Amino acid sequence: MTRRATARAHANIALVKYWGKRQSDLNLPANGSLSLTLDAMHTTTAVEWTTSGGIDEVALNGSRLEGRELAKIGAWLDRVRQLAGIQDRARIETVNNFPTAAGLASSASAYAALALAATAAAGLDLSPRDLSILARQGSGSAARSIFGGFVEWQRGDRPDGQDSFAEPILAPEDWDVRMLVAVLEPGPKPISSRDGMTVTTETSPMYGAWLATVEADLAAMREAVLARDLDRVGAIAEANCLKMHATMITSSPMILYWQPATVALMHRVVTLRHAGLGAYFTMDAGPNVKVLCAPGDAERLKGELLAVPGVQEVLMGKPGPGVVLL
Amino acid sequence: MTRRATARAHANIALVKYWGKRQSDLNLPANGSLSLTLDAMHTTTAVEWTTSGGIDEVALNGSRLEGRELAKIGAWLDRVRQLAGIQDRARIETVNNFPTAAGLASSASAYAALALAATAAAGLDLSPRDLSILARQGSGSAARSIFGGFVEWQRGDRPDGQDSFAEPILAPEDWDVRMLVAVLEPGPKPISSRDGMTVTTETSPMYGAWLATVEADLAAMREAVLARDLDRVGAIAEANCLKMHATMITSSPMILYWQPATVALMHRVVTLRHAGLGAYFTMDAGPNVKVLCAPGDAERLKGELLAVPGVQEVLMGKPGPGVVLL
Repeated sequence: MTRRATARAHANIALVKYWGKRQSDLNLPANGSLSLTLDAMHTTTAVEWTTSGGIDEVALNGSRLEGRELAKIGAWLDRVRQLAGIQDRARIETVNNFPTAAGLASSASAYAALALAATAAAGLDLSPRDLSILARQGSGSAARSIFGGFVEWQRGDRPDGQDSFAEPILAPEDWDVRMLVAVLEPGPKPISSRDGMTVTTETSPMYGAWLATVEADLAAMREAVLARDLDRVGAIAEANCLKMHATMITSSPMILYWQPATVALMHRVVTLRHAGLGAYFTMDAGPNVKVLCAPGDAERLKGELLAVPGVQEVLMGKPGPGVVLL
Repeated sequence: MTRRATARAHANIALVKYWGKRQSDLNLPANGSLSLTLDAMHTTTAVEWTTSGGIDEVALNGSRLEGRELAKIGAWLDRVRQLAGIQDRARIETVNNFPTAAGLASSASAYAALALAATAAAGLDLSPRDLSILARQGSGSAARSIFGGFVEWQRGDRPDGQDSFAEPILAPEDWDVRMLVAVLEPGPKPISSRDGMTVTTETSPMYGAWLATVEADLAAMREAVLARDLDRVGAIAEANCLKMHATMITSSPMILYWQPATVALMHRVVTLRHAGLGAYFTMDAGPNVKVLCAPGDAERLKGELLAVPGVQEVLMGKPGPGVVLL
């Protein structure tokens, strides 16, 4: 039995967002979502199981995790230990190739890579679907990073979450697009996604309208992706993102992930679009702005985004692969 | 019969917003609203009726209005001519003491002053309520600028709008507060309030949730104003404003009145509040940010707002009077 394995998974950017849980402990979402896995941002994770005792150890970009961060991963590792029928402690080394502290969603690629590395190292050979279910329990959006290209995460209905997993809907090689990620200077420390979702679902008077329309967005997005219709995909993504942020800013207390440069970028993208450039923004639980465009427009767009005050760097991604063992 | 009269009216800032009409031609609102009339910003308007023929002439801050702007006022003047039973043409000189082009709502004070000056010059002696109804037909929020201090504009139910007028609920001398107006550098030309309302009511999936909660906001705000409870008034105003902007950004196309400095100011106000300063923001159909606070905090707060990049100037207002003849 192999006691050590290394896996790599890529970040994903939701085009139809996940915001709110129907069940918290298993990360069961209130709605389905649809994302694009990006080649540019990935997490590489090595897991070794050891019987030598002690505690689980996790090093993220060379720094040892402690306290609540470590405890959260430990609780998730218990699920793997239970599946594998082992009591071993884990030694984990994980590295992101993108700025972890920049407010980019790193938990999706992290738990996707961890799910494959930890189970493979424990001698388990899980199906992609079961990996998706396992990764989901660490971070909801990690369910999607198991797969490459355009991916849909099913909401599911079962209390045990066995029907809430992601599935690929269009492989990375089947549609070439670009997603630029404008990374901003950090602002005031925002609320975590997890806490933000709880506050929103409990207090926003707009949350019902969000839930009532997201299924239609999903159906329209699925169709637009399969038709490889960039303008349609972009328009749905932008509107969906704005609805999510509308539920956030109407939460009590207000959740305002946007920074000044976020708004500057939104205006810039709209202005460029009025000038004929097919570019569409989306933002997650943070200030950074992701912009979808055609491959031929990406370089010019990157220059435009870099010129906006407050933008630190612009990453450029294209549809990337699902999780793999290295 | 006096053929000439001059009136002055003050701007008002809504604490519970007006957004969306139940009837367009008469400016009948979809919901009631509640505002504070501010002494710092006013419009002074002289009207002279003449039988010498020609067309209506309007000079705003010394510049002659033409085209659609003039036609809109002419159509409203027809209502006055009908009330007074005259065919005369109007010569109007109107001056704002605040930057007209800075995206501050000048139409409220404009039509309130015009309603009193035009009717008085025509020999009519309208009650404040009838002035409110008349001003409303020029610009909805002008219904509120007829009165001083804290003012509520009744939605009304009648198709003819005779029950949709404003009423004072707390006189300016009965509660001393400050409202700071942070005036920003102008950004991309935004959509007008009138067009914005139409787009929102027709396309935002959040508009129903807005309408469903605004009556409760109104009742709570009325109570908080009468209790002179600054923190309660501020909290309701902030949440109400954010709900309105949530309906705007979820309209199709998106209506984003915010500029980068708008978001910077929102964060700044929240940060100051966490540090113990009782300050609360509100924004209307434009990028400027209005901040409510106690008189003793106003000077310090003004300095804080002026320090935010993108802020051009900060006006300071206190509860001001209703419309008067000069």
